[in-house]
Amino acid sequence: MNKVVLEDMAKLIKTPFTPLDIFKINETAVRLVKIKGRYHWHKHTNQDELFIVIRGEMDINLTDEVVHLKEGEGYIVKCGVMHQSYAENEALALMVEPQETLAQGD
Amino acid sequence: MNKVVLEDMAKLIKTPFTPLDIFKINETAVRLVKIKGRYHWHKHTNQDELFIVIRGEMDINLTDEVVHLKEGEGYIVKCGVMHQSYAENEALALMVEPQETLAQGD
Repeated sequence: MNKVVLEDMAKLIKTPFTPLDIFKINETAVRLVKIKGRYHWHKHTNQDELFIVIRGEMDINLTDEVVHLKEGEGYIVKCGVMHQSYAENEALALMVEPQETLAQGD
Repeated sequence: MNKVVLEDMAKLIKTPFTPLDIFKINETAVRLVKIKGRYHWHKHTNQDELFIVIRGEMDINLTDEVVHLKEGEGYIVKCGVMHQSYAENEALALMVEPQETLAQGD
């Protein structure tokens, strides 16, 4: 296996909110996602979802607060929690979540 | 839950090669580790282990190659693979691995 350069993988991503699988650790996926604009509100009934910002800034909107993340900052959306991600300018984030997690929610 | 600032968490780590748990996503841990000097050779029989470098540079020595990682680069040590991490100057890395993984190997 070769090492993975995150910004090289990012060049393969053409569309915001379409996570690209870059690592699989046992049953867990690490995905790379571009955030630009506003995604729809959704939840993952059984899966926690971690966001860590690699470049730029993003918001995770929750029903009762806004979590603003800058580069080098992370936040877990616990399973069952309604959320929506947003960035005015393109942000790049890692997501760590169970392999079976659907981006669009369930 | 509050957001997590990786470099703030790093200030809590006094000793290299002692991972600090910073996130738990279902059964998976995300840990922060300082690499400085040379760790012992070990393996994790059943657990894959991902390293992503956040600051600095490190080597992952394998029996047949050296994987050199810079900031923004990652590598999975697959379960069962002997490895040893090394950095001349302090590096900061994220590790993603099953919760039960023991730093020292098994």
